[in-house]
Amino acid sequence: MAVDPNLAQRLLDGDRRALARAISLVENDDPAGWALVREVYPHTGRATVVGVTGAPGAGKSTLIGQLVKNRRAADRSVAVLSIDPSSPFTHGALLGDRIRLTEHFLDAGVFIRSMANRGALGGLSEASLQAALLMDAAGRDDVFLETVGVGQAEVDIIDHADTVLLVLMPGGGDSVQALKAGIMEIPDIIVVNKADHPLTQTMVREIRGVLSLAPQGPWKVPILQTEAVDGRGVDELMDKLVEHRAFIQEQGTLSERRRRNLRSEVLAIATGRMRRRLEHKLTQDDAFERLIDDVVSRRMDPASAAGAILAAELDGDGGV
Amino acid sequence: MAVDPNLAQRLLDGDRRALARAISLVENDDPAGWALVREVYPHTGRATVVGVTGAPGAGKSTLIGQLVKNRRAADRSVAVLSIDPSSPFTHGALLGDRIRLTEHFLDAGVFIRSMANRGALGGLSEASLQAALLMDAAGRDDVFLETVGVGQAEVDIIDHADTVLLVLMPGGGDSVQALKAGIMEIPDIIVVNKADHPLTQTMVREIRGVLSLAPQGPWKVPILQTEAVDGRGVDELMDKLVEHRAFIQEQGTLSERRRRNLRSEVLAIATGRMRRRLEHKLTQDDAFERLIDDVVSRRMDPASAAGAILAAELDGDGGV
Repeated sequence: MAVDPNLAQRLLDGDRRALARAISLVENDDPAGWALVREVYPHTGRATVVGVTGAPGAGKSTLIGQLVKNRRAADRSVAVLSIDPSSPFTHGALLGDRIRLTEHFLDAGVFIRSMANRGALGGLSEASLQAALLMDAAGRDDVFLETVGVGQAEVDIIDHADTVLLVLMPGGGDSVQALKAGIMEIPDIIVVNKADHPLTQTMVREIRGVLSLAPQGPWKVPILQTEAVDGRGVDELMDKLVEHRAFIQEQGTLSERRRRNLRSEVLAIATGRMRRRLEHKLTQDDAFERLIDDVVSRRMDPASAAGAILAAELDGDGGV
Repeated sequence: MAVDPNLAQRLLDGDRRALARAISLVENDDPAGWALVREVYPHTGRATVVGVTGAPGAGKSTLIGQLVKNRRAADRSVAVLSIDPSSPFTHGALLGDRIRLTEHFLDAGVFIRSMANRGALGGLSEASLQAALLMDAAGRDDVFLETVGVGQAEVDIIDHADTVLLVLMPGGGDSVQALKAGIMEIPDIIVVNKADHPLTQTMVREIRGVLSLAPQGPWKVPILQTEAVDGRGVDELMDKLVEHRAFIQEQGTLSERRRRNLRSEVLAIATGRMRRRLEHKLTQDDAFERLIDDVVSRRMDPASAAGAILAAELDGDGGV
């Protein structure tokens, strides 16, 4: 299908269908998608980007649905990007959550999109980052990036946000342990959702304990409580999100953070492409399978085999 | 410090100090370490490698301590490698667990080593894989690889194991949710530790539900219960580990699995090195910072900047 030559302009004018089409292009790794991002990139940087992470089942989608309602009441346009890294066999397990956002489907002020990890490793985060830029360029005031996180893996997409919100649920002790052990980064705001649960206060105390051990920055990480299903605590949460954004803007750390994010993004795209390029070549290459045969039969160690592959790659034919 | 020319032979003879020294070399990315792995690699492939994963606090170290006791009673020599990806600010949070293994410190049949993520991204898993090979070459009958896992990040080191054991604790619902959502891979054996907790049976039922939805292979994933602090259930767990190993050997899937693992390992080492090489060059390179300036000021989009870097790298000077 040919790409509409006016797609960039339509996107910049805020046309929803143009935005949807543009995201499909980057999702499918279509060169026209990359060209489009290149063209509209000067118009990005205006949206407020909130990253929402937490274990599956913590209620992220429901909470985002409520935050969207709050933003719409303030007459702001919104985009939501849900990134679903679930494996093929449960395909849809997380995307099922999307139905919780359907009440906004008919509102032109709300744009919702899911992305699942169908492609190569690294390809999902790259495509999501591009999609977030497109949402920004399309003039959305608020962009919510939703991703599953109980460890380190979600880091790259969340790194693109101005504000990182971690959603916990009572009984979800593994995430608190991960915070405590330092394998999950301290977010800007923590919310305990499903706060009608009897274990909520225990969890809040535990989190407070973890935060008291973390190095103190100028921003004091607040712990809020919500019940996303009926909207309780959501307005207070939105106030805190706005407050954090204003805080980093005043402190001058917003631009610092964005520079750091963009730097990571450039590096992530470069290394992701290198990895996919290498993987692709290796699946095409009998010499690689012979190297693996040597490794399996213990004639050549894995590091030497890796060295041989890299040498061939870097002395090779170039062209990305 | 010069490397003992007989280090490889001493390691192959099972000398503990030689093994410790060799692991330090690979941990410090010393070329002598890589040369050593190359030399002893033909002698690897004999150890039984068990990967143990689970959230921080689930009791992995205590459980491994008990499994080690079981193996020693069967007169088998053991090595334990604990991989600690915690961030610098909690340095020691996970390593503190190591004291639970100290009862074995005076037993020459037990070799214990921790590795923390001090170096570059990707460097830890690469070094751990090499360390596991060294333990194997040193004639250890059983190698336990312990790593924190509540998501996908731990995947590469666990991929090196013949058998993967997931340790859960009652109340650690996030891991069950992660399994359910398919963002954590189904392991070979699941154990609910701290099984004296009232929520244990609820959790076992939940896991059973998740497993019933997963695609069924020839191996039926068992769910065991242990209380690692007093050793309850540990012998049954060890029996299951032995049973799984025998099963994959009989089915011929052990060699299949090892081929797949070694293939991933070669690829992981190659891409990890590429990434570090790129990161290193970029920190040295003013032209890169100017590219980032362009990205920050929205003159050039991130993907174009990444493309420019890759083009320079692949047409460049070579040499890994």
